[in-house]
Amino acid sequence: MPDHAHIISSYQALLGAEHVVTRPDDLAAAETATFATRARIPAILRPADRDEVRACVRLAGELGCALYPISRGKNWGLGSRVPTRDGALLLDLGRLDRIVEYNEEMAYVTLEPGVSFGQLTKFLREQVSSLMMDGIGGPPDASIIGNTVERGHGMGPWADRFSNVCGAEVVLPDGSVIHTGFKSFPNSRVSALSRWGVGPSLDSLFTQSNLGIVTSITLWLQPRPASLQPFVLRMSSGAQLSAAVEASRRLRLSRMPVGLRFLNDFRLFSVFYPCPWADDDLRSLDERRREMQQQGGIGLWNGVGVIHAPSREIGAALRSHVEALFRPHVDEVVFEAPSRQQPVDGAASIGGYSLESPFDSVFSGGTSDGALRMCYWRKRPDQTTEQGIHSDSCGVLWYCPTLPARGADVSLAVAMMDEISAEYGFEPNIGLISSTERTLEVTGAILFDRDRPGEDERALVCHDKLMGTLTAAGFTPYRLGVQSMGLFEGLEEGAMALLRRLKAALDPQDILAPGRYDSRRGRKE
Amino acid sequence: MPDHAHIISSYQALLGAEHVVTRPDDLAAAETATFATRARIPAILRPADRDEVRACVRLAGELGCALYPISRGKNWGLGSRVPTRDGALLLDLGRLDRIVEYNEEMAYVTLEPGVSFGQLTKFLREQVSSLMMDGIGGPPDASIIGNTVERGHGMGPWADRFSNVCGAEVVLPDGSVIHTGFKSFPNSRVSALSRWGVGPSLDSLFTQSNLGIVTSITLWLQPRPASLQPFVLRMSSGAQLSAAVEASRRLRLSRMPVGLRFLNDFRLFSVFYPCPWADDDLRSLDERRREMQQQGGIGLWNGVGVIHAPSREIGAALRSHVEALFRPHVDEVVFEAPSRQQPVDGAASIGGYSLESPFDSVFSGGTSDGALRMCYWRKRPDQTTEQGIHSDSCGVLWYCPTLPARGADVSLAVAMMDEISAEYGFEPNIGLISSTERTLEVTGAILFDRDRPGEDERALVCHDKLMGTLTAAGFTPYRLGVQSMGLFEGLEEGAMALLRRLKAALDPQDILAPGRYDSRRGRKE
Repeated sequence: MPDHAHIISSYQALLGAEHVVTRPDDLAAAETATFATRARIPAILRPADRDEVRACVRLAGELGCALYPISRGKNWGLGSRVPTRDGALLLDLGRLDRIVEYNEEMAYVTLEPGVSFGQLTKFLREQVSSLMMDGIGGPPDASIIGNTVERGHGMGPWADRFSNVCGAEVVLPDGSVIHTGFKSFPNSRVSALSRWGVGPSLDSLFTQSNLGIVTSITLWLQPRPASLQPFVLRMSSGAQLSAAVEASRRLRLSRMPVGLRFLNDFRLFSVFYPCPWADDDLRSLDERRREMQQQGGIGLWNGVGVIHAPSREIGAALRSHVEALFRPHVDEVVFEAPSRQQPVDGAASIGGYSLESPFDSVFSGGTSDGALRMCYWRKRPDQTTEQGIHSDSCGVLWYCPTLPARGADVSLAVAMMDEISAEYGFEPNIGLISSTERTLEVTGAILFDRDRPGEDERALVCHDKLMGTLTAAGFTPYRLGVQSMGLFEGLEEGAMALLRRLKAALDPQDILAPGRYDSRRGRKE
Repeated sequence: MPDHAHIISSYQALLGAEHVVTRPDDLAAAETATFATRARIPAILRPADRDEVRACVRLAGELGCALYPISRGKNWGLGSRVPTRDGALLLDLGRLDRIVEYNEEMAYVTLEPGVSFGQLTKFLREQVSSLMMDGIGGPPDASIIGNTVERGHGMGPWADRFSNVCGAEVVLPDGSVIHTGFKSFPNSRVSALSRWGVGPSLDSLFTQSNLGIVTSITLWLQPRPASLQPFVLRMSSGAQLSAAVEASRRLRLSRMPVGLRFLNDFRLFSVFYPCPWADDDLRSLDERRREMQQQGGIGLWNGVGVIHAPSREIGAALRSHVEALFRPHVDEVVFEAPSRQQPVDGAASIGGYSLESPFDSVFSGGTSDGALRMCYWRKRPDQTTEQGIHSDSCGVLWYCPTLPARGADVSLAVAMMDEISAEYGFEPNIGLISSTERTLEVTGAILFDRDRPGEDERALVCHDKLMGTLTAAGFTPYRLGVQSMGLFEGLEEGAMALLRRLKAALDPQDILAPGRYDSRRGRKE
């Protein structure tokens, strides 16, 4: 049994008392996710820099306590700041918020875990930069490194964010520091420019992992394209979605810089509207759903995409190509020249989405509070303080299976998601991100009101049924919430044994984020 | 001291005597690279399948001997089949030559290490496939997996081959088998479709590595584009090269599917012509060089590229864009419609390169014997049997620094390569591959005649001077020959220590390829 008082006083001596948070309110807030969790946090450590991170890790080894690192803790719907297991000290990297290097010529930025998407957007604006990042659908104050090491998504053509970084600096569980790729050669001119380096390539070891703490990384940026054209596809049936998925695969396999996601009606409702039936039973749902589709100009399924092109001519040709690919299969393909995107009366001007729509800003490399608005979908206006989704008891659970970008697979998976969501009384709230050429990654949301009795339990049961059913059907998850690490047990025995050997080699005391993308299987307790 | 007779008889019992090669001629051939090497090979093991590979590895653990795996052993200029250290048994994976799965709809092929580029090209032709691979500049009988795990290059837009694979099957040094990415979930529908999987991502651990043996991998293929346009840039000065490099970075940062490499005059001479001064001293070299440039329509530097586009309109717009980018900076930008590429009298029809040019076939996903021809550059016709570059004593040493795709860096590095090559009496023979958006990877060749006294030594000294000088200047190598593993010592101490811990965790007996992308530093011998 660890001696918490001794642990805390030791960390106070190391970091200064003001950077070891133990106020009950603060700890309770950190123990609050957007769904029911149980893990308790004895203290929050707030190191100032990399060397303090190293000292924190070394001290944990001496004291025999566990640390749970977070970047900025915005892992909403997947656990927020709550550790995978009880009793770990939260290692909050938010004070490491420097933009370490910015290189416009070579189009990259090197940053620390405390740097948020909003901070980088602001920085690039201040620099009058010609560069943009691939935006995020999540909250603007989310950490870029947090999103990257969890292998989160961008919104545009380079949605696979981890494929667009290099050169991580990592603090290992013994407090040593390594660099990955060419950054491990101290004098290299290509440290920030290329990914693999020479010899075994290590950076992917530290994503979705508890093997090290990433204290900086280089994020590649893109020159703002001469032509940036958002577009919308509107579909009124699952059959249209299937056909559009087939077309999207052909488009993505051509490697044209096109970003695309498919969102169902409920996803868009939840971003744009309050829920009109939060207090009703759901019998009139089908009718209201159709009304809202019509009012909002929203399809049963909606493609939301963006074309990047380095010249107007290429942009025009690519637009024609996209139109030709999708037009035969969907109700509408909507492009609007930016000059004509005047928001009329707050209403839609591009396929149902106003200029102030979240999609506009995120497609231009910015951020949006759309994700925040989603979280309030099931809250009654009189219940909300807008002081934060956690204190407002917003219920959000994401589920994250991976689908082949193939019509038949998508139909099957969507039918499962529709059916299981309905079984538990939740709307299916589904996004499908074309983050690779051959797959669609599901961002499925269960939105609920944590203040309503029974909802916490029902939502978790629904989540587990969804993930269990989809995983069993071969739609393997690409990311796990803190409550879902058990799905990791589905890994084949050989790979699991290898991960155990790696963990034992790097973190024999199990100091770092025990249980995170890890397994108890075969572990001696 | 290992008991070779016992080791060999044990392997004969395991694999059958016919698959344990011990004939002195065969061993001598396997000990022969395209430069001087010393490592001796006691026997060549030829397992039939994955399970025999596992048995070979387990037996090595029991017997305490080392194994050096090769796929097809075509690592020309970097060591061919010769192990990094003396005394390892060669584990020849050439009999594992199955194309395990082919999926046209989802555009991939899963294959074993014995499958060559030529074999896949033939297979795709037989299938009347709509798909193509990114070709290779190296020999057609090279292994696709061998090239991939060494992180070799394609010729087209997806030149970074390792970024276009997923789902490795790996035999670990203890004989266990693991799969990487989603393939580690036995029932996954996305095993062959996406890269990272869930949890720490492991496949890059097994590239440029001695941590495991890759026994199969999925290679992503591309639909043949509606528009495939090779083009050539001709440059008459280093200043033009610098400007073209700047333009190429802007092009690549836009992520348009364009493949591009820069080749100097000597690289093209060596592919197309015999060397006219092999027996001369080099005093008249400058004059002859200019003559050959003029005769062949070859620039001091030459860009050789290809545009892929999913429609003719996009292709036309992209061609205009490429022309506008490069035209102001180079002597010539040459595109030719394929229908007009009639080879005239064996002469050039597209910017100096005939239809039968190696570039034509490799840009269409095929292979070429251009690399073979290069190897004979310094051989007199009466000395060659064309029975193979090794028996013909062709001298080839590659050097592989990485350059920022920035004019000033390229000028500096090229000056170093020119000067050091000349100092040792070799022509600078340089290719620069645009394999990432921000870097150019050098394929520098020292071509010589191993039959001429002193050449072996001189070539190695020149190579080491080149790599040492370039590495010290920050142009870090992206790949190492068997004779150059010492450059790995430049790695920072932290990363090196981590690699040692990984090696100790996975291969405590140092069975697999000892010394390959590895270090003796800090190792107990």
